[in-house]
Amino acid sequence: MNLKHLAIALAATLLSGTIKAQTTQPAVVEDFKPSTLDQPGQEYPQVNSQGYVRFRVKAPKADSVKVSLGLGGRGGTKLKKGDDGYWWGTTEGPMDEGFHYYHLTVDGGVFNDPGALNYYGSVRWESGIEIPAHDQDFYALKDVPHGNVQQVLFPSKSTNTSRRAFVYTPPGYEKEKSKRYPVLYLQHGWGEDETAWSNQGHANLIMDNLIAEGEIKPFIIVMTYGMTNEVKMGPNALRNFKIDAFQTVLTDELIPYVDATFRTYADKAHRAMAGLSMGGMETHAITLNKPDVFDYYALLSGGVYTPAEITDRSKVKLVFISCGSRERPDGVKNAVTALQSAGVNAVAFVSENTAHEFLTWRRSLHELAPLLFKN
Amino acid sequence: MNLKHLAIALAATLLSGTIKAQTTQPAVVEDFKPSTLDQPGQEYPQVNSQGYVRFRVKAPKADSVKVSLGLGGRGGTKLKKGDDGYWWGTTEGPMDEGFHYYHLTVDGGVFNDPGALNYYGSVRWESGIEIPAHDQDFYALKDVPHGNVQQVLFPSKSTNTSRRAFVYTPPGYEKEKSKRYPVLYLQHGWGEDETAWSNQGHANLIMDNLIAEGEIKPFIIVMTYGMTNEVKMGPNALRNFKIDAFQTVLTDELIPYVDATFRTYADKAHRAMAGLSMGGMETHAITLNKPDVFDYYALLSGGVYTPAEITDRSKVKLVFISCGSRERPDGVKNAVTALQSAGVNAVAFVSENTAHEFLTWRRSLHELAPLLFKN
Repeated sequence: MNLKHLAIALAATLLSGTIKAQTTQPAVVEDFKPSTLDQPGQEYPQVNSQGYVRFRVKAPKADSVKVSLGLGGRGGTKLKKGDDGYWWGTTEGPMDEGFHYYHLTVDGGVFNDPGALNYYGSVRWESGIEIPAHDQDFYALKDVPHGNVQQVLFPSKSTNTSRRAFVYTPPGYEKEKSKRYPVLYLQHGWGEDETAWSNQGHANLIMDNLIAEGEIKPFIIVMTYGMTNEVKMGPNALRNFKIDAFQTVLTDELIPYVDATFRTYADKAHRAMAGLSMGGMETHAITLNKPDVFDYYALLSGGVYTPAEITDRSKVKLVFISCGSRERPDGVKNAVTALQSAGVNAVAFVSENTAHEFLTWRRSLHELAPLLFKN
Repeated sequence: MNLKHLAIALAATLLSGTIKAQTTQPAVVEDFKPSTLDQPGQEYPQVNSQGYVRFRVKAPKADSVKVSLGLGGRGGTKLKKGDDGYWWGTTEGPMDEGFHYYHLTVDGGVFNDPGALNYYGSVRWESGIEIPAHDQDFYALKDVPHGNVQQVLFPSKSTNTSRRAFVYTPPGYEKEKSKRYPVLYLQHGWGEDETAWSNQGHANLIMDNLIAEGEIKPFIIVMTYGMTNEVKMGPNALRNFKIDAFQTVLTDELIPYVDATFRTYADKAHRAMAGLSMGGMETHAITLNKPDVFDYYALLSGGVYTPAEITDRSKVKLVFISCGSRERPDGVKNAVTALQSAGVNAVAFVSENTAHEFLTWRRSLHELAPLLFKN
């Protein structure tokens, strides 16, 4: 997947929402429950056991209320006004498992659903909904030791401000005062920000659970804002993207700050970079521009590496490439096969029945984490 | 201010918004700029140098758009439809300095302003706006060493879940590995949550700046959710409030967790409790119920102590009571005078020209912090 394909995939996802491709829909089972991402005390939106979503929005004097979620090509889900002043509607089909962004259009204006929590995506805070996934256990909040997610403000001379990052420190970090840890730098996608991997991605819970199961050695994750050069919305946003500004923040400012502030192993052998979508594009560029900074590279729905790009194969311990089965899984698999044939330790992962959305990336992180910092 | 007065003050603030009490308004100066709390890239809402707010909301087919901010008794600010499909309007008068919650009513439905960032208040995520205050420097993001705000998930047997808290650790906490710190437990108000003191309150920046100026010795702040017993909205919410559930979480679960996890001085002499509004009510109840836990008590727009309530005066190092000048400053001052006469080390603080809102509480924290942990 090259940059153009990435932009197209991204645009298609943003415009359409995601819905299972089924021509004949089953009867809707009336076991709807409030979404786990509803605001406290709110009853709607609701999700049923099949993955249908039912909306209820109060707007007694409105003329039309639509929801962006559903069959995007046909305009999402149009709600109908009830006698009670509420607008009601159910998606025409079941939604893919996992997390979806959405918004309302009320009389031509775009608003969030007052019932749902908001998540930063599409360069705005959007409503979010979660369709319970059959494998949701790996990112569930469990009774295990929990790591912390710290907001840090690090000095950035290149942008003349203090910039925000979130740092996941694993359980035990506070107590084991002499222990050092490897670090994964983990980037969000276009229109998202440094909150995405904790809020939408549950990166901290994925790590807590893997560590509790003994599946991985604990490491630190650092997440910061990747749209340093203020990409504007629009079809050419990604095409005009320049990596320099963010590369400087990441490699000249954030990494030294993290190494000076947290108990890291401050070397290439204990440093990984991964990113989803645009964050994959950034990972691709920065890992190749700065071959002495990271030993581990991962692109999550964010393009591929070609064998020709990895000139010194001894310098790369792992290349991980993933996407959802509704994206371009053959592109991922073929790229990994080519890398393997060229002697690169490359791993492909395809998330079943997901598209360019966060369940793909939660699963990707869950697959990636045990492969990192093996040496 | 007793519980009933607190509930009335709170209800009045929620219903009305806050606006300077001026009968003759000055001419509106046309120097509006985007609010500092606008979402990235958004041009509206805007604020001018006098504190007027101008709104612009896209809803081309709506019949009415109102904003809750402005002259509450007269229904906030009604917007007018322009030829461009946008609704426009300016508050009838200048707003008080500081942070205000607000929302839109579009054709009878309540939505947030798509231009503004959201803050948790009134048991929902509300739009927020900031009127630059003349003294905003004390909570500004400056080029000084910054502490971190950590999300922790602590085990809570009494509520059978992992609960969230945010922990401010001061600059240098990571590096000075043998240093221990006192702790302030700092509670939000009714309808808010554990995000309020960092997001709306800038507690971390207030601390960073005080520490950089050498005004205080560094301490840790812990902020968690205080509506443990699931108070429902409505006029009787506070009247039916029971402290037991939250008291158990705070004193039996959170404090031991913090003392086991962070480098604290785990004793009464190095522990303070403060809260705003309902959080003051909680502070009042818990400090009196558990006289061996905290040495320092602070109520921010959250009632008062009477001399009779503080039975063993040797056990309390400081009682700090504050409110905005538009609340009941005489009640605060009189209560503090009575406490002082009874031999209690009591301090009153009144925030000038503010009401039951966050600038009152930012200023209160700024006044309180240097008084803590003196002994």
